[in-house]
Order: sequence, then C-alpha cells, then structure tokens
Amino acid sequence: MSIAVDAMGGDHAPEQIVLGALEAAPLLKSKLYLVGQPEEIRKFAPNLPANVEIVAASQAVGMEEKPLDAYRKKKDSSLMVAARLVKEGKAQAMVSAGNTGAASATSLLVWRQISGVHRPAIASPMPNKHGGFVLLDSGASPDVDPEHLVEFAIMGRAYAQQVMGRKNPKVHLLNIGEEEGKGNAFAKQAFKLLSKHEWFAGNIEGKDMFKEPCDVVVCEAFVGNVVLKTAEGVAELMASIIKEEVPTNKLIRAFYWPVKKVMKPIREKTDYAAVGGSPLLGLNGICIISHGRSNARAIKNAILMAEATVENRLVNTIREAVDRDLGHLIHSESDHASGVVESVTEVP
Amino acid sequence: MSIAVDAMGGDHAPEQIVLGALEAAPLLKSKLYLVGQPEEIRKFAPNLPANVEIVAASQAVGMEEKPLDAYRKKKDSSLMVAARLVKEGKAQAMVSAGNTGAASATSLLVWRQISGVHRPAIASPMPNKHGGFVLLDSGASPDVDPEHLVEFAIMGRAYAQQVMGRKNPKVHLLNIGEEEGKGNAFAKQAFKLLSKHEWFAGNIEGKDMFKEPCDVVVCEAFVGNVVLKTAEGVAELMASIIKEEVPTNKLIRAFYWPVKKVMKPIREKTDYAAVGGSPLLGLNGICIISHGRSNARAIKNAILMAEATVENRLVNTIREAVDRDLGHLIHSESDHASGVVESVTEVP
Repeated sequence: MSIAVDAMGGDHAPEQIVLGALEAAPLLKSKLYLVGQPEEIRKFAPNLPANVEIVAASQAVGMEEKPLDAYRKKKDSSLMVAARLVKEGKAQAMVSAGNTGAASATSLLVWRQISGVHRPAIASPMPNKHGGFVLLDSGASPDVDPEHLVEFAIMGRAYAQQVMGRKNPKVHLLNIGEEEGKGNAFAKQAFKLLSKHEWFAGNIEGKDMFKEPCDVVVCEAFVGNVVLKTAEGVAELMASIIKEEVPTNKLIRAFYWPVKKVMKPIREKTDYAAVGGSPLLGLNGICIISHGRSNARAIKNAILMAEATVENRLVNTIREAVDRDLGHLIHSESDHASGVVESVTEVP
Repeated sequence: MSIAVDAMGGDHAPEQIVLGALEAAPLLKSKLYLVGQPEEIRKFAPNLPANVEIVAASQAVGMEEKPLDAYRKKKDSSLMVAARLVKEGKAQAMVSAGNTGAASATSLLVWRQISGVHRPAIASPMPNKHGGFVLLDSGASPDVDPEHLVEFAIMGRAYAQQVMGRKNPKVHLLNIGEEEGKGNAFAKQAFKLLSKHEWFAGNIEGKDMFKEPCDVVVCEAFVGNVVLKTAEGVAELMASIIKEEVPTNKLIRAFYWPVKKVMKPIREKTDYAAVGGSPLLGLNGICIISHGRSNARAIKNAILMAEATVENRLVNTIREAVDRDLGHLIHSESDHASGVVESVTEVP
C-alpha cells in the first residue's frame, strides 16, 4: 500500500507538505512517495523515515494555472508524476494541496472514470450535531445533469460506509423545501431519479443538514461549493465577532477564559486542518484534495484519509455499488472522459 | 401612508402578528390595516390605537397550501384582501409571515411586475463585518435566466440605496471563484451581462461576502435560498455547541458570564426577529416576507421595514432604475405575469 504526495502543490509547499508527510509517516501502514524537486524536499527532510521515498518531478503547477494547460504542458509536474504512480499501480491514492482544478483534471485524464460514472465529484466532510455528513459534489463537475446526482449518491454512500463507518447510509438531496415537488427543475428531476433507490431519504434543507442526522447530501457542484464557502464564511464571521468582544486589557482578559474553553470544540469541528481534505470520487484512483493554505497538520490528516480510502477499498466499493445500483444503465463505455474535460478545467 | 398586515399568516398568528402591530403602531407615521377575522384579532387587541384599523377577511391561507390554489380559491383570504388594499392604493406595502409561496404568488398576480422586470426576487438582508449586504434572489423565482440577474441587481441596488442608505451601491455576482470565467454556464453568462453596467463589481465567493465590504449580491433563487439556510444552520450549530460547553452546575456556570457577553452581538446580528423580514422586489407594491415562526418583535420590525420602503419610495426608485439601466430593452410589455405563475407557485 503506497500513497503519493504532491510535495510542490499548495500555498506553503513544499515546506508544510513535507513536514506533514513526516508527521504522518510513523502512523502509517503505507509507504509514502514525496513527489517533487528532490533538493527542495530535502531542505525540510534531511533524514527520511524508512517508509518515505522521494520521487523526482522537475515541474510544479501554479495555483492560478489553467487546469488543462497544466495537464497538457507540464508532463513532468509533481501532480502528473504522482497521478502516474497511481495509474501504474505503484501507489493507490494521492494527496494534493495544489491547484484544485488541475488536480481534478489531471486525476480524471490520467485515471479516467470508473465504468458507469460520468462525472467525478469532490466529497466534503461537513460537521453537524450527529458526527457529520459528506456533501458532494462540492466543486469538481459544474453543469452536470440530474442523472449524475445518482452517481454522486452512490459514490457518497460508499465513502460514508467505508471511511466514515456508517451502516447502510442514507442519501438526501439538498433542496429548498422538504416535500417532494419542491425546488427548481433540476432538483425535481434529480428527486425523481433518486427515488428509484431504497437508500434515498428525500429532500433536506441547508439548515437541517447541520441539525438532523444525515450521512450523504448530494447537490450539483455550484451549489455544493457555495454551501462549503458559506459555511466557512459564517463560522469565521462568528468567531471574529466573538474575538472582538474579548477585551484587549490583559487583566480583564483573564476573566474571559470560559470563552476560549467553549470555542475549543468549534475550532476543532470547523478547522479544515482536522479533516485534511476532500476526496475526489468516481475515478480509478483516489485524490485527496486539500485546501491551498494547508499546513503540516492538514497534510498529515489528508494522508491518513488517503490511507483509509485505500485500506477500506473505496474505489472497489464504488465500482461494485455502481454495478449493483446502475448496472442496467451501463453500456460499453470504455472511454467517456473527453466530454467532461472542458468543464473540469473550469473548476474553481 | 398605510401598511397592510396579514394578521392570519404565520405559525403564531394571529396573536404574535397583532401584538407586533401594536408594538409598531406608536413608532409609525403610517396607518396600519390589520387584515383578518375581526373577532380573532380583537382577542389580542381589545383596544386599538388610533392609527390601527381592522379590515375583515373571512379566510386564511395555510402554511402548506399550494400557492396557486390559495390564490384561485381563497378570494377573501387575509393575504388576498391585504394585497388588494395595496392594489387599490389604500395601502402602499404589506407584511406577511404566512405561506411564502402564496404571499409571493398573490403579490405577483394582484400587483404584477414593474415594467421591464420579468421576475420578482426576495431580497434578504445578511450580516457581515461591514454593516451587511442584501442577497437576492433568496427564493422567489426558481429557474430564471441569466438576464434576470441584471434585473435583480437593479432592484437590489435600489434597496441598498433607499433603505440601507448606501451611496452608489455596487453589485457582486455570487460565484465559485473570483476571476472572470469562473463558475457554471449560468454564472458565466450572468457575468457577461452584468459587466455592461458600471455598478458591477465582479464575482464574490460565499466566504468573502461575510468578510469583505459589499452592498448587493445576486444569484438565482435555488442558490440564494441554500445560502440563507446554510448560514442559519451553521450559526445555530455553533451556538448550540457553545451552549453545550457551558456547565449546567449553577455555581460553575456563574463564571461563564463572559460567554453570554460575547454571544450577545451574535444573537443580535443573526436574530431574524431583529431584521423582521425580506422584501419581495420587482412588483407594483412591496410585500415584506417574514419568517413563519415570527414573534411580535419580528413583526414589529417587518412593519418598520415596510414603512421605510414606502417612505423612501422604493417601488418608484426601482421603476426609475429599470428605466435608466434597461430602458432600451423594455418593449410594450403590459402583462407578462402569466408566464411565471407556474414557477412562482413552486416557491418553497
């Protein structure tokens, strides 16, 4: 079992990526490949643990580079070399905190979709009062059809079951009303298609998914990405208002220790570094997409998440679930990646 | 100047509606019409202030009733009678905490759109670090075209200017990336159309609108409604986690007064009752849509908001702005409501 880490991707690469890998290494059953410019990586890891190996890649993809350009022009980028390690079976998953669009496009084009899956989706773990849920698609595939939400649902269920440990996970459709018949044309059609599956639990509203028990919530990429960022924005706004209310005077401030105390679980639940990243699902390989501003702790947790997806056979579970739930719809689609390339390149 | 209040709409109607009206009455320059079943209203207002008058309506619209059914079948509902008071010029705005879909559909069908406006939009005031912004459409018109976002922008600007007191308000497009060319096909087209106006300030992400100064943020109804409810859900989740961290033991609890203190501005900024409601814009009349669970305080504030829209000539300002910014596009459209009726009936 091996994990490839894109050591050159992210706002704080390679330093925080390398340090995160070193933190993860002793906790892993897997081997780690640190992919990037060896001299840069060695600056932060003069002594490598036994299960960490550097794999050379001469190029790096910039955070603002166009995804398709990165794929076409940088054949020796750390991202591309990491993806190829997975493609060749030398690694089973990869982690990147670099350009999200480039990581999604490269993963798609190098690995291709699981048979029966048309569009990959980013599955984001979200907090709530009941151990959290996974939201997908949170940004991989804009402009999908309602049919694709069924694929996302199947992929999300596999993740909830294999990685979150949920038994027979249920799927909700994110909608603007609870009852059947609510929402826009897209949501109504998605509801109809999802209703054919026994694991479908109906509509859920944006407010209720943070309050009620749920496992998997599906929506299209634009909505999912807006949810993710709105949640982040509101949490930050609240934290900053609270912070402003605490007096700056050191003596008075001492009485405010309970504020620090009550905010601790919030910080833990909303800290992206505690989660590490969001897996890109639906491809013949797993890429954990980490936040651009990932620190070592986030990378460590992303690597642990990557190992969990491999150990729990996530790709195979998705394959089997797609086959079981959509088998009758799968024709001989050996290569249907080309149609989605343009849209993947537009990923935020 | 008169405001019509739907006394029978809302989870706590008529009691909280009537009490809210009585709280608002001494603060108003306007006359108030309390519309509903007189004997029910009088239970909570045995003595009416001089500027409050009861207008009889024999029917009430239920919270789960289909909007178009309510409009077609209940011609003497409190909602319908209130809307007619505005139509006939006896009132200039109305307030309803009842069925949102029915309030939107009834307003649209009784008042019709301002010339040049195709779809009404609900404008929701949202908090941020810089005095807040207004988000629209937050749920009135599902399945709009990108063109309609330009109308929403013009309506939102009029609100920001006339009611929020912003000078030369800017409009942002809610998107999943900042740069031009980001987002789905809808957002890209909307960006292109909005770019023709000097008040357009580009894309904004869900996270940044809570952090950076902004006046008006436009998006389509599904996304806007999800933003609204996600924000509500996250704020409630955080508040409930904090609450759980405060010990129940009364003695220890006493040391936790700073928590209560720092949470006060949060409660104020996120309390729907402090805002009162969201105006439905684009029609020949203003309807303030209040939360179904509105208490007297929310109704009081909704009535004050209604008066502010009338006093500051909001409908006329929208008329003038549409004429100025879209005048070249307006043909002789005297009656274009019929095409949108079906979609308005689907409002959540």
